[in-house]
Amino acid sequence: MCELLGLNANVPTDICFSFSGLMQRGGRTGPHRDGWGMSLYEGRGARSFHDPRPSVASEIADFIRRHSIRSRVIISHIRKANRGRVCLENTHPFTRELWGRCWTFAHNGQLKGVKRRPLTHYRPIGTTDSEYAFCWMLDRLREGFARYPARTRLWRAVAELAADLEGLGVFNFLMSDSHHLYAWCSTRLCWLTRRHPFGPAHSIDTGEWEDFSELTTPDDVVTIIASRPLTDNETWNDMARGSLEVFHEGEPCLRAPVTPLPPTLA
Amino acid sequence: MCELLGLNANVPTDICFSFSGLMQRGGRTGPHRDGWGMSLYEGRGARSFHDPRPSVASEIADFIRRHSIRSRVIISHIRKANRGRVCLENTHPFTRELWGRCWTFAHNGQLKGVKRRPLTHYRPIGTTDSEYAFCWMLDRLREGFARYPARTRLWRAVAELAADLEGLGVFNFLMSDSHHLYAWCSTRLCWLTRRHPFGPAHSIDTGEWEDFSELTTPDDVVTIIASRPLTDNETWNDMARGSLEVFHEGEPCLRAPVTPLPPTLA
Repeated sequence: MCELLGLNANVPTDICFSFSGLMQRGGRTGPHRDGWGMSLYEGRGARSFHDPRPSVASEIADFIRRHSIRSRVIISHIRKANRGRVCLENTHPFTRELWGRCWTFAHNGQLKGVKRRPLTHYRPIGTTDSEYAFCWMLDRLREGFARYPARTRLWRAVAELAADLEGLGVFNFLMSDSHHLYAWCSTRLCWLTRRHPFGPAHSIDTGEWEDFSELTTPDDVVTIIASRPLTDNETWNDMARGSLEVFHEGEPCLRAPVTPLPPTLA
Repeated sequence: MCELLGLNANVPTDICFSFSGLMQRGGRTGPHRDGWGMSLYEGRGARSFHDPRPSVASEIADFIRRHSIRSRVIISHIRKANRGRVCLENTHPFTRELWGRCWTFAHNGQLKGVKRRPLTHYRPIGTTDSEYAFCWMLDRLREGFARYPARTRLWRAVAELAADLEGLGVFNFLMSDSHHLYAWCSTRLCWLTRRHPFGPAHSIDTGEWEDFSELTTPDDVVTIIASRPLTDNETWNDMARGSLEVFHEGEPCLRAPVTPLPPTLA
Protein backbone atom coordinates (compact mmCIF):
# COMPACT_ATOMS: atom_id res chain seq x y z
CA MET A 1 0.00 0.00 0.00
CA CYS A 2 0.99 3.64 -0.17
CA GLU A 3 0.35 6.93 1.55
CA LEU A 4 -1.16 10.08 0.11
CA LEU A 5 -0.65 13.72 1.03
CA GLY A 6 -2.46 16.70 -0.44
CA LEU A 7 -2.54 20.44 0.15
CA ASN A 8 -5.09 22.99 -0.97
CA ALA A 9 -4.81 26.63 0.06
CA ASN A 10 -6.09 30.07 -0.86
CA VAL A 11 -2.54 31.44 -1.06
CA PRO A 12 0.62 29.76 -2.33
CA THR A 13 1.79 27.69 0.63
CA ASP A 14 4.72 25.37 1.17
CA ILE A 15 4.31 21.79 2.26
CA CYS A 16 7.66 21.46 4.02
CA PHE A 17 6.30 20.62 7.48
CA SER A 18 3.83 17.98 6.30
CA PHE A 19 6.19 16.51 3.72
CA SER A 20 8.98 16.26 6.30
CA GLY A 21 6.66 13.99 8.27
CA LEU A 22 5.47 11.99 5.26
CA MET A 23 8.96 11.32 3.91
CA GLN A 24 9.88 9.63 7.21
CA ARG A 25 7.26 7.03 6.38
CA GLY A 26 9.19 6.27 3.20
CA GLY A 27 11.64 3.99 4.98
CA ARG A 28 11.98 5.19 8.58
CA THR A 29 8.62 5.46 10.40
CA GLY A 30 6.80 3.60 7.62
CA PRO A 31 7.52 0.88 5.03
CA HIS A 32 6.81 2.92 1.88
CA ARG A 33 10.31 2.61 0.42
CA ASP A 34 9.43 2.15 -3.26
CA GLY A 35 9.65 5.74 -4.39
CA TRP A 36 7.81 8.98 -3.94
CA GLY A 37 6.51 11.83 -6.04
CA MET A 38 4.96 15.25 -5.77
CA SER A 39 3.11 17.59 -8.14
CA LEU A 40 2.83 21.28 -7.28
CA TYR A 41 0.65 23.54 -9.37
CA GLU A 42 1.56 27.09 -10.26
CA GLY A 43 -1.27 28.62 -12.25
CA ARG A 44 -2.27 26.14 -14.95
CA GLY A 45 1.11 24.45 -14.92
CA ALA A 46 2.50 21.88 -12.53
CA ARG A 47 5.97 20.95 -11.43
CA SER A 48 6.38 17.27 -10.75
CA PHE A 49 9.16 15.52 -8.90
CA HIS A 50 9.52 11.75 -9.02
CA ASP A 51 12.07 9.44 -7.51
CA PRO A 52 11.82 5.65 -7.44
CA ARG A 53 14.17 5.63 -4.42
CA PRO A 54 12.97 5.81 -0.79
CA SER A 55 11.97 9.33 0.20
CA VAL A 56 14.17 9.26 3.33
CA ALA A 57 17.23 8.70 1.12
CA SER A 58 16.22 10.93 -1.80
CA GLU A 59 18.28 14.03 -2.52
CA ILE A 60 15.37 15.57 -4.45
CA ALA A 61 13.03 14.97 -1.50
CA ASP A 62 15.55 16.64 0.76
CA PHE A 63 15.79 19.58 -1.68
CA ILE A 64 12.01 20.03 -1.61
CA ARG A 65 11.95 19.81 2.17
CA ARG A 66 14.61 22.50 2.50
CA HIS A 67 13.39 24.81 -0.27
CA SER A 68 10.03 26.37 0.17
CA ILE A 69 8.21 25.79 -3.16
CA ARG A 70 4.81 27.37 -2.64
CA SER A 71 1.62 26.24 -4.33
CA ARG A 72 -2.13 26.29 -3.86
CA VAL A 73 -2.59 22.69 -4.95
CA ILE A 74 -0.12 19.92 -4.12
CA ILE A 75 -0.43 16.15 -4.43
CA SER A 76 2.19 13.82 -3.02
CA HIS A 77 2.57 10.07 -2.70
CA ILE A 78 4.99 7.60 -1.15
CA ARG A 79 4.90 4.13 -2.60
CA LYS A 80 4.93 0.59 -1.26
CA ALA A 81 4.74 -1.31 -4.52
CA ASN A 82 2.22 -4.06 -4.97
CA ARG A 83 1.43 -3.87 -8.69
CA GLY A 84 4.11 -2.77 -11.14
CA ARG A 85 7.86 -2.86 -10.53
CA VAL A 86 9.77 -0.04 -8.86
CA CYS A 87 10.77 2.36 -11.62
CA LEU A 88 10.26 5.96 -12.64
CA GLU A 89 7.26 5.40 -14.92
CA ASN A 90 5.41 3.61 -12.10
CA THR A 91 5.96 6.45 -9.63
CA HIS A 92 2.91 8.58 -8.72
CA PRO A 93 1.55 11.23 -9.31
CA PHE A 94 0.64 10.55 -12.92
CA THR A 95 -0.11 13.42 -15.27
CA ARG A 96 -2.29 13.84 -18.35
CA GLU A 97 -3.87 16.73 -20.24
CA LEU A 98 -7.66 16.91 -20.54
CA TRP A 99 -9.63 19.93 -21.83
CA GLY A 100 -6.39 21.94 -21.96
CA ARG A 101 -5.80 21.38 -18.27
CA CYS A 102 -3.05 19.53 -16.49
CA TRP A 103 -4.54 16.67 -14.43
CA THR A 104 -2.53 14.85 -11.78
CA PHE A 105 -3.45 11.70 -9.85
CA ALA A 106 -2.06 9.61 -7.00
CA HIS A 107 -3.59 6.42 -5.62
CA ASN A 108 -3.47 4.26 -2.53
CA GLY A 109 -4.93 0.79 -2.94
CA GLN A 110 -5.30 -2.01 -5.45
CA LEU A 111 -7.81 -2.54 -8.24
CA LYS A 112 -8.21 -6.11 -9.37
CA GLY A 113 -9.02 -6.50 -13.05
CA VAL A 114 -9.02 -2.80 -13.91
CA LYS A 115 -6.82 -3.52 -16.93
CA ARG A 116 -9.61 -5.47 -18.55
CA ARG A 117 -11.53 -2.23 -19.04
CA PRO A 118 -10.99 -0.85 -22.53
CA LEU A 119 -9.18 2.46 -23.04
CA THR A 120 -9.85 4.79 -25.93
CA HIS A 121 -7.78 7.92 -25.72
CA TYR A 122 -5.31 7.62 -22.84
CA ARG A 123 -2.82 4.81 -22.46
CA PRO A 124 -0.64 4.05 -19.47
CA ILE A 125 3.12 4.53 -19.80
CA GLY A 126 3.95 2.30 -16.83
CA THR A 127 2.39 -0.92 -15.58
CA THR A 128 0.50 0.08 -12.39
CA ASP A 129 -3.21 -0.48 -11.90
CA SER A 130 -3.24 3.11 -10.59
CA GLU A 131 -2.16 4.79 -13.83
CA TYR A 132 -4.54 2.52 -15.73
CA ALA A 133 -7.45 3.58 -13.51
CA PHE A 134 -6.50 7.25 -14.01
CA CYS A 135 -6.45 6.79 -17.79
CA TRP A 136 -9.84 5.05 -17.63
CA MET A 137 -11.42 7.86 -15.58
CA LEU A 138 -10.07 10.56 -17.91
CA ASP A 139 -11.25 8.55 -20.91
CA ARG A 140 -14.76 8.50 -19.46
CA LEU A 141 -14.72 12.19 -18.57
CA ARG A 142 -13.53 13.01 -22.06
CA GLU A 143 -16.28 10.97 -23.61
CA GLY A 144 -18.86 12.51 -21.30
CA PHE A 145 -17.92 16.15 -21.78
CA ALA A 146 -16.41 17.88 -24.81
CA ARG A 147 -15.08 20.66 -22.59
CA TYR A 148 -14.71 21.46 -18.89
CA PRO A 149 -18.28 21.11 -17.62
CA ALA A 150 -20.22 22.88 -14.90
CA ARG A 151 -18.48 21.97 -11.68
CA THR A 152 -21.32 20.09 -10.02
CA ARG A 153 -21.71 17.90 -13.10
CA LEU A 154 -17.99 17.23 -13.08
CA TRP A 155 -17.97 16.37 -9.39
CA ARG A 156 -20.85 13.98 -9.82
CA ALA A 157 -19.10 12.33 -12.75
CA VAL A 158 -15.89 11.92 -10.73
CA ALA A 159 -17.86 10.41 -7.84
CA GLU A 160 -19.63 8.00 -10.19
CA LEU A 161 -16.40 6.85 -11.79
CA ALA A 162 -14.69 6.47 -8.42
CA ALA A 163 -17.60 4.48 -6.97
CA ASP A 164 -17.53 2.26 -10.03
CA LEU A 165 -13.80 1.50 -9.76
CA GLU A 166 -14.02 1.02 -6.02
CA GLY A 167 -15.91 -2.16 -6.73
CA LEU A 168 -12.56 -3.61 -7.90
CA GLY A 169 -10.73 -3.17 -4.61
CA VAL A 170 -9.29 -0.30 -2.61
CA PHE A 171 -9.30 3.09 -4.29
CA ASN A 172 -8.25 6.05 -2.13
CA PHE A 173 -7.01 8.80 -4.40
CA LEU A 174 -6.11 12.46 -4.75
CA MET A 175 -6.60 14.15 -8.13
CA SER A 176 -6.45 17.71 -9.40
CA ASP A 177 -7.31 19.61 -12.56
CA SER A 178 -5.16 22.59 -11.39
CA HIS A 179 -8.23 24.33 -9.99
CA HIS A 180 -9.85 21.83 -7.64
CA LEU A 181 -8.42 19.04 -5.52
CA TYR A 182 -10.52 15.85 -5.51
CA ALA A 183 -10.18 13.37 -2.63
CA TRP A 184 -11.94 10.03 -2.82
CA CYS A 185 -11.99 7.88 0.29
CA SER A 186 -12.35 4.17 -0.23
CA THR A 187 -10.98 2.98 3.11
CA ARG A 188 -8.81 5.64 4.72
CA LEU A 189 -8.29 9.36 4.16
CA CYS A 190 -8.50 12.29 6.58
CA TRP A 191 -8.09 16.05 6.42
CA LEU A 192 -7.97 19.22 8.49
CA THR A 193 -8.23 22.91 7.68
CA ARG A 194 -5.89 25.39 9.35
CA ARG A 195 -7.09 28.99 9.61
CA HIS A 196 -6.83 32.04 11.87
CA PRO A 197 -6.07 31.87 14.77
CA PHE A 198 -3.22 29.56 13.74
CA GLY A 199 -1.52 27.55 16.42
CA PRO A 200 1.41 25.16 16.78
CA ALA A 201 1.38 21.69 15.25
CA HIS A 202 3.36 18.66 16.42
CA SER A 203 4.56 16.15 13.84
CA ILE A 204 3.96 12.51 14.71
CA ASP A 205 6.82 11.39 12.49
CA THR A 206 9.59 13.90 13.19
CA GLY A 207 8.61 15.08 16.68
CA GLU A 208 9.07 18.66 15.45
CA TRP A 209 6.81 21.57 16.36
CA GLU A 210 5.78 24.22 13.82
CA ASP A 211 4.08 27.45 14.86
CA PHE A 212 1.94 28.39 11.85
CA SER A 213 1.01 31.76 13.41
CA GLU A 214 4.55 32.89 12.54
CA LEU A 215 4.22 31.84 8.88
CA THR A 216 0.71 32.98 7.94
CA THR A 217 -1.59 35.97 7.65
CA PRO A 218 -5.08 36.02 9.20
CA ASP A 219 -6.61 35.48 5.74
CA ASP A 220 -4.79 32.24 4.96
CA VAL A 221 -6.80 29.04 4.74
CA VAL A 222 -4.93 25.77 4.25
CA THR A 223 -6.32 22.24 4.07
CA ILE A 224 -4.10 19.18 4.43
CA ILE A 225 -5.34 15.74 3.34
CA ALA A 226 -3.48 12.58 4.32
CA SER A 227 -3.86 8.83 4.52
CA ARG A 228 -3.20 9.02 8.26
CA PRO A 229 -2.93 12.05 10.57
CA LEU A 230 0.45 13.78 10.41
CA THR A 231 0.08 15.66 13.71
CA ASP A 232 -1.11 14.51 17.14
CA ASN A 233 -2.33 17.81 18.62
CA GLU A 234 -4.91 18.73 15.97
CA THR A 235 -8.29 17.28 15.08
CA TRP A 236 -8.38 15.43 11.76
CA ASN A 237 -11.66 14.72 9.98
CA ASP A 238 -11.98 11.13 8.88
CA MET A 239 -13.63 10.87 5.49
CA ALA A 240 -16.52 8.47 5.14
CA ARG A 241 -15.91 5.38 3.04
CA GLY A 242 -17.13 5.79 -0.50
CA SER A 243 -17.22 9.59 -0.35
CA LEU A 244 -15.79 12.45 -2.38
CA GLU A 245 -14.49 15.74 -1.01
CA VAL A 246 -13.64 18.58 -3.38
CA PHE A 247 -11.36 21.33 -2.10
CA HIS A 248 -10.91 24.81 -3.53
CA GLU A 249 -9.20 27.90 -2.11
CA GLY A 250 -8.30 25.93 1.00
CA GLU A 251 -11.85 24.93 1.88
CA PRO A 252 -14.00 21.88 1.30
CA CYS A 253 -16.49 23.12 -1.27
CA LEU A 254 -18.80 20.14 -1.57
CA ARG A 255 -21.69 21.15 0.69
CA ALA A 256 -23.60 17.92 0.24
CA PRO A 257 -22.24 14.43 -0.34
CA VAL A 258 -22.12 13.51 -4.00
CA THR A 259 -24.24 10.42 -4.35
CA PRO A 260 -23.26 8.36 -7.33
CA LEU A 261 -26.08 8.25 -9.82
CA PRO A 262 -26.97 5.68 -12.44
CA PRO A 263 -24.14 5.51 -14.97
CA THR A 264 -24.87 8.59 -17.07
CA LEU A 265 -22.25 11.29 -17.24
CA ALA A 266 -23.88 13.71 -19.61
CA MET B 1 14.42 33.27 -29.16
CA CYS B 2 15.59 30.40 -27.01
CA GLU B 3 18.37 27.85 -26.83
CA LEU B 4 18.12 24.09 -26.97
CA LEU B 5 20.31 21.39 -25.48
CA GLY B 6 19.94 17.65 -25.95
CA LEU B 7 21.85 14.55 -24.92
CA ASN B 8 21.62 11.03 -26.25
CA ALA B 9 23.92 8.29 -24.99
CA ASN B 10 24.26 4.52 -24.92
CA VAL B 11 24.72 4.55 -21.13
CA PRO B 12 23.05 6.77 -18.49
CA THR B 13 25.11 9.94 -18.59
CA ASP B 14 24.89 13.21 -16.71
CA ILE B 15 24.60 16.55 -18.46
CA CYS B 16 26.27 18.63 -15.73
CA PHE B 17 29.11 19.99 -17.87
CA SER B 18 26.95 21.00 -20.84
CA PHE B 19 24.12 22.33 -18.67
CA SER B 20 26.55 24.40 -16.60
CA GLY B 21 27.46 26.18 -19.82
CA LEU B 22 23.89 26.51 -21.08
CA MET B 23 22.55 27.92 -17.82
CA GLN B 24 25.02 30.79 -18.06
CA ARG B 25 23.21 31.86 -21.22
CA GLY B 26 20.05 32.22 -19.13
CA GLY B 27 20.99 35.67 -17.89
CA ARG B 28 24.78 35.88 -17.79
CA THR B 29 26.43 35.04 -21.14
CA GLY B 30 23.07 35.12 -22.98
CA PRO B 31 19.72 36.89 -22.75
CA HIS B 32 17.50 33.83 -22.21
CA ARG B 33 16.19 34.90 -18.82
CA ASP B 34 12.56 33.79 -19.13
CA GLY B 35 12.79 30.37 -17.59
CA TRP B 36 14.32 27.02 -18.32
CA GLY B 37 13.36 23.36 -18.23
CA MET B 38 14.77 19.89 -18.61
CA SER B 39 13.35 16.41 -19.17
CA LEU B 40 15.48 13.37 -18.37
CA TYR B 41 14.26 9.91 -19.32
CA GLU B 42 14.77 6.86 -17.17
CA GLY B 43 13.33 3.84 -18.97
CA ARG B 44 9.88 4.77 -20.25
CA GLY B 45 9.45 7.49 -17.64
CA ALA B 46 10.81 11.02 -17.60
CA ARG B 47 11.64 13.44 -14.85
CA SER B 48 10.95 17.02 -15.78
CA PHE B 49 12.15 20.17 -14.08
CA HIS B 50 10.69 23.56 -14.95
CA ASP B 51 11.36 27.00 -13.57
CA PRO B 52 10.05 30.26 -15.04
CA ARG B 53 12.95 32.09 -13.38
CA PRO B 54 16.33 32.69 -15.07
CA SER B 55 18.49 29.58 -15.02
CA VAL B 56 21.47 31.46 -13.55
CA ALA B 57 19.33 32.34 -10.49
CA SER B 58 17.41 29.07 -10.22
CA GLU B 59 17.96 26.87 -7.16
CA ILE B 60 16.58 23.86 -9.04
CA ALA B 61 19.01 24.47 -11.92
CA ASP B 62 21.82 24.67 -9.41
CA PHE B 63 20.63 21.40 -7.83
CA ILE B 64 20.72 19.66 -11.23
CA ARG B 65 24.14 21.06 -12.00
CA ARG B 66 25.52 19.78 -8.71
CA HIS B 67 23.74 16.42 -8.60
CA SER B 68 24.56 13.97 -11.29
CA ILE B 69 21.18 12.73 -12.61
CA ARG B 70 22.08 10.27 -15.34
CA SER B 71 19.96 9.55 -18.39
CA ARG B 72 20.26 8.27 -21.94
CA VAL B 73 17.92 10.91 -23.36
CA ILE B 74 17.80 14.50 -22.10
CA ILE B 75 16.12 17.58 -23.56
CA SER B 76 16.69 21.02 -22.11
CA HIS B 77 15.64 24.56 -23.04
CA ILE B 78 16.30 28.09 -21.86
CA ARG B 79 13.69 30.62 -22.82
CA LYS B 80 13.63 34.14 -24.17
CA ALA B 81 9.91 34.70 -24.39
CA ASN B 82 8.38 36.04 -27.58
CA ARG B 83 4.94 34.37 -27.62
CA GLY B 84 3.20 33.63 -24.35
CA ARG B 85 3.88 35.23 -20.97
CA VAL B 86 6.55 34.01 -18.57
CA CYS B 87 4.89 31.36 -16.39
CA LEU B 88 5.25 27.70 -15.51
CA GLU B 89 2.79 26.37 -18.09
CA ASN B 90 4.68 28.18 -20.88
CA THR B 91 8.04 26.70 -19.88
CA HIS B 92 9.51 24.02 -22.16
CA PRO B 93 9.87 21.03 -22.47
CA PHE B 94 6.23 20.12 -22.94
CA THR B 95 5.04 16.56 -22.30
CA ARG B 96 2.24 14.40 -23.67
CA GLU B 97 1.48 10.69 -23.88
CA LEU B 98 1.10 9.07 -27.29
CA TRP B 99 0.90 5.29 -27.95
CA GLY B 100 1.64 4.69 -24.25
CA ARG B 101 4.92 6.58 -24.50
CA CYS B 102 6.02 9.77 -22.85
CA TRP B 103 6.83 12.40 -25.52
CA THR B 104 8.71 15.58 -24.69
CA PHE B 105 9.33 18.61 -26.90
CA ALA B 106 11.28 21.87 -26.76
CA HIS B 107 11.34 24.53 -29.47
CA ASN B 108 13.43 27.47 -30.57
CA GLY B 109 11.74 29.87 -32.96
CA GLN B 110 8.36 31.34 -33.81
CA LEU B 111 5.47 29.99 -35.85
CA LYS B 112 3.09 32.59 -37.20
CA GLY B 113 -0.51 31.44 -37.45
CA VAL B 114 0.04 27.92 -36.10
CA LYS B 115 -2.93 28.38 -33.75
CA ARG B 116 -5.28 28.54 -36.73
CA ARG B 117 -4.63 24.85 -37.36
CA PRO B 118 -7.35 22.70 -35.83
CA LEU B 119 -6.54 20.32 -33.00
CA THR B 120 -8.39 17.07 -32.34
CA HIS B 121 -6.87 15.08 -29.50
CA TYR B 122 -4.35 17.29 -27.76
CA ARG B 123 -4.89 20.77 -26.40
CA PRO B 124 -2.28 23.19 -25.13
CA ILE B 125 -2.26 24.04 -21.41
CA GLY B 126 -0.27 27.24 -21.87
CA THR B 127 -0.33 29.90 -24.58
CA THR B 128 2.89 29.37 -26.54
CA ASP B 129 2.98 28.67 -30.25
CA SER B 130 5.52 25.96 -29.35
CA GLU B 131 3.17 23.83 -27.25
CA TYR B 132 0.47 24.33 -29.88
CA ALA B 133 2.80 23.05 -32.61
CA PHE B 134 3.71 20.04 -30.46
CA CYS B 135 0.02 19.23 -29.94
CA TRP B 136 -0.59 19.57 -33.67
CA MET B 137 2.26 17.21 -34.58
CA LEU B 138 1.13 14.58 -32.06
CA ASP B 139 -2.44 14.94 -33.32
CA ARG B 140 -1.27 14.19 -36.83
CA LEU B 141 0.92 11.25 -35.75
CA ARG B 142 -1.99 9.84 -33.77
CA GLU B 143 -4.28 10.12 -36.74
CA GLY B 144 -1.70 8.60 -39.05
CA PHE B 145 -0.78 5.60 -36.90
CA ALA B 146 -2.90 3.65 -34.43
CA ARG B 147 0.24 2.42 -32.66
CA TYR B 148 3.98 3.07 -32.67
CA PRO B 149 4.87 2.47 -36.32
CA ALA B 150 7.96 1.12 -38.03
CA ARG B 151 10.69 3.59 -37.25
CA THR B 152 11.46 4.72 -40.78
CA ARG B 153 7.77 5.50 -41.33
CA LEU B 154 7.70 7.45 -38.08
CA TRP B 155 10.83 9.40 -38.97
CA ARG B 156 9.43 10.29 -42.37
CA ALA B 157 6.19 11.43 -40.77
CA VAL B 158 8.05 13.61 -38.25
CA ALA B 159 10.10 15.14 -41.06
CA GLU B 160 6.98 15.86 -43.11
CA LEU B 161 5.20 17.52 -40.21
CA ALA B 162 8.27 19.56 -39.30
CA ALA B 163 8.76 20.69 -42.89
CA ASP B 164 5.11 21.68 -43.04
CA LEU B 165 5.25 23.79 -39.85
CA GLU B 166 8.56 25.33 -40.85
CA GLY B 167 6.65 27.22 -43.52
CA LEU B 168 5.20 29.31 -40.68
CA GLY B 169 8.49 30.67 -39.40
CA VAL B 170 11.44 29.31 -37.45
CA PHE B 171 11.12 25.80 -36.06
CA ASN B 172 14.25 24.32 -34.50
CA PHE B 173 13.19 21.61 -32.08
CA LEU B 174 14.23 18.63 -30.00
CA MET B 175 11.69 15.90 -29.33
CA SER B 176 11.81 12.42 -27.82
CA ASP B 177 9.51 9.42 -27.47
CA SER B 178 11.78 8.00 -24.71
CA HIS B 179 13.58 5.80 -27.22
CA HIS B 180 14.79 8.16 -29.94
CA LEU B 181 15.82 11.80 -29.87
CA TYR B 182 14.59 13.83 -32.86
CA ALA B 183 16.36 17.05 -33.84
CA TRP B 184 14.89 19.25 -36.53
CA CYS B 185 17.01 22.14 -37.81
CA SER B 186 15.17 25.08 -39.26
CA THR B 187 17.90 27.68 -38.93
CA ARG B 188 20.44 26.66 -36.32
CA LEU B 189 21.31 23.43 -34.54
CA CYS B 190 24.61 21.57 -34.19
CA TRP B 191 25.85 18.37 -32.58
CA LEU B 192 28.92 16.33 -31.77
CA THR B 193 29.52 12.76 -30.68
CA ARG B 194 32.07 11.97 -27.99
CA ARG B 195 33.55 8.47 -27.96
CA HIS B 196 36.77 6.64 -27.14
CA PRO B 197 39.43 8.01 -26.96
CA PHE B 198 37.77 10.74 -24.90
CA GLY B 199 39.61 13.99 -24.42
CA PRO B 200 39.22 17.25 -22.54
CA ALA B 201 36.53 19.77 -23.43
CA HIS B 202 36.62 23.51 -22.79
CA SER B 203 33.35 25.31 -22.02
CA ILE B 204 32.79 28.55 -23.93
CA ASP B 205 30.45 29.89 -21.24
CA THR B 206 32.15 28.92 -17.97
CA GLY B 207 35.77 28.66 -19.10
CA GLU B 208 35.97 25.29 -17.30
CA TRP B 209 37.75 22.21 -18.61
CA GLU B 210 36.32 18.71 -18.26
CA ASP B 211 38.37 15.59 -18.98
CA PHE B 212 35.84 13.04 -20.16
CA SER B 213 38.44 10.26 -20.18
CA GLU B 214 38.21 10.27 -16.37
CA LEU B 215 34.41 9.88 -16.41
CA THR B 216 33.80 7.31 -19.14
CA THR B 217 34.50 3.76 -20.25
CA PRO B 218 35.80 2.94 -23.75
CA ASP B 219 32.33 1.74 -24.77
CA ASP B 220 30.51 4.99 -23.98
CA VAL B 221 29.06 6.99 -26.86
CA VAL B 222 27.50 10.36 -26.10
CA THR B 223 25.98 12.87 -28.51
CA ILE B 224 25.30 16.46 -27.49
CA ILE B 225 22.99 18.65 -29.59
CA ALA B 226 22.84 22.41 -29.05
CA SER B 227 21.65 25.62 -30.67
CA ARG B 228 25.22 26.91 -30.61
CA PRO B 229 28.48 25.11 -29.77
CA LEU B 230 29.10 24.79 -26.04
CA THR B 231 32.82 24.07 -26.33
CA ASP B 232 35.56 25.72 -28.40
CA ASN B 233 38.08 22.88 -28.69
CA GLU B 234 35.85 20.30 -30.36
CA THR B 235 34.34 20.04 -33.84
CA TRP B 236 30.57 20.55 -33.95
CA ASN B 237 28.53 19.41 -36.94
CA ASP B 238 26.17 22.08 -38.21
CA MET B 239 22.86 20.60 -39.25
CA ALA B 240 21.53 21.54 -42.68
CA ARG B 241 18.48 23.78 -42.74
CA GLY B 242 15.29 21.82 -43.12
CA SER B 243 16.80 18.52 -42.01
CA LEU B 244 16.01 15.89 -39.40
CA GLU B 245 18.53 13.93 -37.36
CA VAL B 246 17.40 10.99 -35.26
CA PHE B 247 19.69 9.82 -32.46
CA HIS B 248 19.65 6.49 -30.66
CA GLU B 249 22.16 4.87 -28.31
CA GLY B 250 24.36 7.94 -28.61
CA GLU B 251 24.68 7.81 -32.41
CA PRO B 252 22.94 9.50 -35.30
CA CYS B 253 20.89 6.67 -36.79
CA LEU B 254 19.45 8.32 -39.87
CA ARG B 255 21.78 7.10 -42.58
CA ALA B 256 20.10 9.07 -45.34
CA PRO B 257 18.37 12.43 -45.14
CA VAL B 258 14.63 12.12 -44.70
CA THR B 259 13.07 13.91 -47.61
CA PRO B 260 9.59 15.14 -46.85
CA LEU B 261 7.10 13.38 -49.09
CA PRO B 262 3.70 14.46 -50.30
CA PRO B 263 1.41 14.83 -47.29
CA THR B 264 0.52 11.21 -46.67
CA LEU B 265 1.49 9.71 -43.37
CA ALA B 266 -0.01 6.28 -43.68
